[in-house]
Amino acid sequence: MDYSVDQLVALLQPRAVRGNFFGKIRGIASLEQAKEGDLSFLDNPRYVAHVANSQASVLLLPESYDGKPQPNAAHLIVANPSLALGQLCKEVERERSRPAVAGIHPTALVDATASVHATASIGPYCVVEADVLIAAHAVVLAHCTVGPRCRVGESSLLHPKVCLYQDTEIGAGCIIHGGAVIGCDGYGYATTENGMHHKLAHIGRVVLEDGVEVGANCTIDRARFAETRIGAGTKIDNLVQIGHNVMVGKSCLIVAQVGIAGSTRLGDGVVLAGQVGVAGHISIGAGSQVAAQGGVASNLPPNSIVRGTPAMPLALANRYFVLRKRIPELFRRVENLEREMASDGH
Amino acid sequence: MDYSVDQLVALLQPRAVRGNFFGKIRGIASLEQAKEGDLSFLDNPRYVAHVANSQASVLLLPESYDGKPQPNAAHLIVANPSLALGQLCKEVERERSRPAVAGIHPTALVDATASVHATASIGPYCVVEADVLIAAHAVVLAHCTVGPRCRVGESSLLHPKVCLYQDTEIGAGCIIHGGAVIGCDGYGYATTENGMHHKLAHIGRVVLEDGVEVGANCTIDRARFAETRIGAGTKIDNLVQIGHNVMVGKSCLIVAQVGIAGSTRLGDGVVLAGQVGVAGHISIGAGSQVAAQGGVASNLPPNSIVRGTPAMPLALANRYFVLRKRIPELFRRVENLEREMASDGH
Amino acid sequence: MDYSVDQLVALLQPRAVRGNFFGKIRGIASLEQAKEGDLSFLDNPRYVAHVANSQASVLLLPESYDGKPQPNAAHLIVANPSLALGQLCKEVERERSRPAVAGIHPTALVDATASVHATASIGPYCVVEADVLIAAHAVVLAHCTVGPRCRVGESSLLHPKVCLYQDTEIGAGCIIHGGAVIGCDGYGYATTENGMHHKLAHIGRVVLEDGVEVGANCTIDRARFAETRIGAGTKIDNLVQIGHNVMVGKSCLIVAQVGIAGSTRLGDGVVLAGQVGVAGHISIGAGSQVAAQGGVASNLPPNSIVRGTPAMPLALANRYFVLRKRIPELFRRVENLEREMASDGH
Repeated sequence: MDYSVDQLVALLQPRAVRGNFFGKIRGIASLEQAKEGDLSFLDNPRYVAHVANSQASVLLLPESYDGKPQPNAAHLIVANPSLALGQLCKEVERERSRPAVAGIHPTALVDATASVHATASIGPYCVVEADVLIAAHAVVLAHCTVGPRCRVGESSLLHPKVCLYQDTEIGAGCIIHGGAVIGCDGYGYATTENGMHHKLAHIGRVVLEDGVEVGANCTIDRARFAETRIGAGTKIDNLVQIGHNVMVGKSCLIVAQVGIAGSTRLGDGVVLAGQVGVAGHISIGAGSQVAAQGGVASNLPPNSIVRGTPAMPLALANRYFVLRKRIPELFRRVENLEREMASDGH
Repeated sequence: MDYSVDQLVALLQPRAVRGNFFGKIRGIASLEQAKEGDLSFLDNPRYVAHVANSQASVLLLPESYDGKPQPNAAHLIVANPSLALGQLCKEVERERSRPAVAGIHPTALVDATASVHATASIGPYCVVEADVLIAAHAVVLAHCTVGPRCRVGESSLLHPKVCLYQDTEIGAGCIIHGGAVIGCDGYGYATTENGMHHKLAHIGRVVLEDGVEVGANCTIDRARFAETRIGAGTKIDNLVQIGHNVMVGKSCLIVAQVGIAGSTRLGDGVVLAGQVGVAGHISIGAGSQVAAQGGVASNLPPNSIVRGTPAMPLALANRYFVLRKRIPELFRRVENLEREMASDGH
Repeated sequence: MDYSVDQLVALLQPRAVRGNFFGKIRGIASLEQAKEGDLSFLDNPRYVAHVANSQASVLLLPESYDGKPQPNAAHLIVANPSLALGQLCKEVERERSRPAVAGIHPTALVDATASVHATASIGPYCVVEADVLIAAHAVVLAHCTVGPRCRVGESSLLHPKVCLYQDTEIGAGCIIHGGAVIGCDGYGYATTENGMHHKLAHIGRVVLEDGVEVGANCTIDRARFAETRIGAGTKIDNLVQIGHNVMVGKSCLIVAQVGIAGSTRLGDGVVLAGQVGVAGHISIGAGSQVAAQGGVASNLPPNSIVRGTPAMPLALANRYFVLRKRIPELFRRVENLEREMASDGH
């Protein structure tokens, strides 16, 4: 990263520029952490007081900023500092990344029956099995395994060491992070009277619709005989477990370390915060939100907002979590009442 | 999948066949989700009313079914629809899977001192280190690493990217899913007075007895100087963590994202539901069950059924989880009592 | 492992030796589990009664031991049995492990612009990308991927299948266990009014200071534009998730399956027990401890000791967890009071 103010102006097209800085911008930091040579930004009015004291050399500010200028910085006045920052980050990312080279790396092992589009890229030491389809502009990085009959959609990206079991279908524009395992056997056994667990065959598959992102080291089990399906645009964080036959709606957010047990359905736009657990065979209505570490054991109507385990409506949970700390006090108060009652001659 | 009714009859040997369907069965689905060309089944009397309205073209029904027939479907009357379905799934799985080719893939790196049975299969890009033993009919898929002195038992299957650290012993008939790491260093440090943590050497190992299944991306630490041991027939779901020196009994079920801290012992047939945590150095008696997200911090006698964190006996936990929602009400009732008491002249 | 008493004496330099054993020591076990041919030890005065009944053939005992001798064992009296045991384990480990061979394995793919020190070791099938620096005596085992511009410090060890995304910096003397993914994209999206989530570019990086250990299958996200940083000497157990921009202090202990959400800061010496969750954008003061399965949702001052979710001070949490079981009783007592009040004519 190495930008002059002129280059930033050309890139971000600010509405106005005030002050100047003649060096090069080498990093991005918060207002408080920025040092000389850094660019910073005001995206949250809470931090408006930090602008004038920031050590940053370039500041992205909204038109609404009416505080003191910072004498050693160039001020770029933009419609939306967050968007401008995002634009700059994207540019830095673009410059840093070398596009994947189309074609199959000589060390990749691609079955003769697999079909890899000429614009797709298969990285070193990948193993691509029979009857696989890899679509245009898809990128499969090092050490991935793509099982028999899998499909990887257009422009999808598999980071290193992704493991797709047989029949997995990845839509277009998906991103799968390192170490994710998709399509593995569902956890299903028939237990006989002697207590032994006999494995049930799982002949279904996992389908990721377009634009899904799956975090590092996630695990998604394939269905018993139909589909485990993740809806378009759903974003899954790291270390999430999704059981067999789960159906996740579109544009859901599933934060790190969530677990969803088998056959459960999530409507569109559901948000599960970190470490949430969801029981099997239930339904969570569209637009529902579950706070971190919550546990959902029964159906939720659409737009539910719940917290706690087992989950309660948010307001009740908040009230409970406050009163919970006063339970010792409540015991004492009841003891007092009992004592008073007794001294009353009861 | 592509079965005529005649082929299904030959495979499943039903006690009776009613109605007919002249096409081919292409999928399996629940009674409600089935479409023309699907096979469906009645395994739970709850769904008996769905039979007559199902769009399925073939129905597996128990002899006890006395509802209306579905006019467009062939009805196969079997002793146990679940078992018949399992048999069909197994057949589909068998047809789809190509048996692993015996022998060592030319890209696999096998140390000269390792012993690989002639009927075993070592996949592409595997690394098998010194003094390893791979038994008959074992299958080690792509990108696995098998550390020094490991043993993989007869007919065991390692999915891609399994990582066995040194001295790990896998019994016969085990299945290890993609990305599992077995035998890694236990989490043990000696902390000196200045707060620094010094790593303790772990010279023990992990032993998986026969018939164990380990889910994708699980981690099982080796013992400090003896064994971490998983009993025969125990089935472990994805993303489970098992600490050093843990001893798990036979035929346990350990569901996804469970964590078991070091030196804890589980008796036979223990069931830990999803996201359960178990403290270190405790003992959970045989046949015990812990409900999802529970936390067990002290010994449990055999056949305990507990819930919550810290765990309580199930009946108490259920009662508590109901009453918990009425805690705000209880505070109000105590306030009322106090007010009444006060107005009584106390 | 195969030590005579004479060899043990030479290695451990005990202050005194009593009794003798003329065979070879083949294993190490606890006092109760030891069999003939095993060495055992007394490191916890709780177990002093087990010494005389132990089947061990060699016993490491403290000078303070004044119980009965065990007639068939050699007794080695040492200043600190734990330290002596650690010394022995280290020796066993040293003997068993073959030092990594310096140099680049012929199957490793190392970019021409990467710089690998002559004493470093790059294992089979590794992929090392552009502008990487691998320092002296670093060891990178099989199937690792080291992304563009990463640095691996002196004497650090990457176990098999570690995945470093671009720009990750690993200090000196670090250990990264199998399957860990470091530097992956932070979980950050801009959600538009139609509910669609647009990925935010993450141009920051992950920095591990010296002496950090990262457990198997952990995931650590890189920062949006600055750093996710793990302080020197911090030890991270398996399956831990650390979000973007998190700053972890020095010498922290982060136990298995912990999740820390984005932008949170941990002071030095913080201990997070297993399955703890920490919310984003908060600060946990130095020396704080969070009990297993706890949830921290707001700032904690230094040296806090908390438990529960949301976390409470330990004493309050302990009191609450005891009283919680008596909530049904409390309801009954309040009902009784209400009945008595009513019968009093209220």
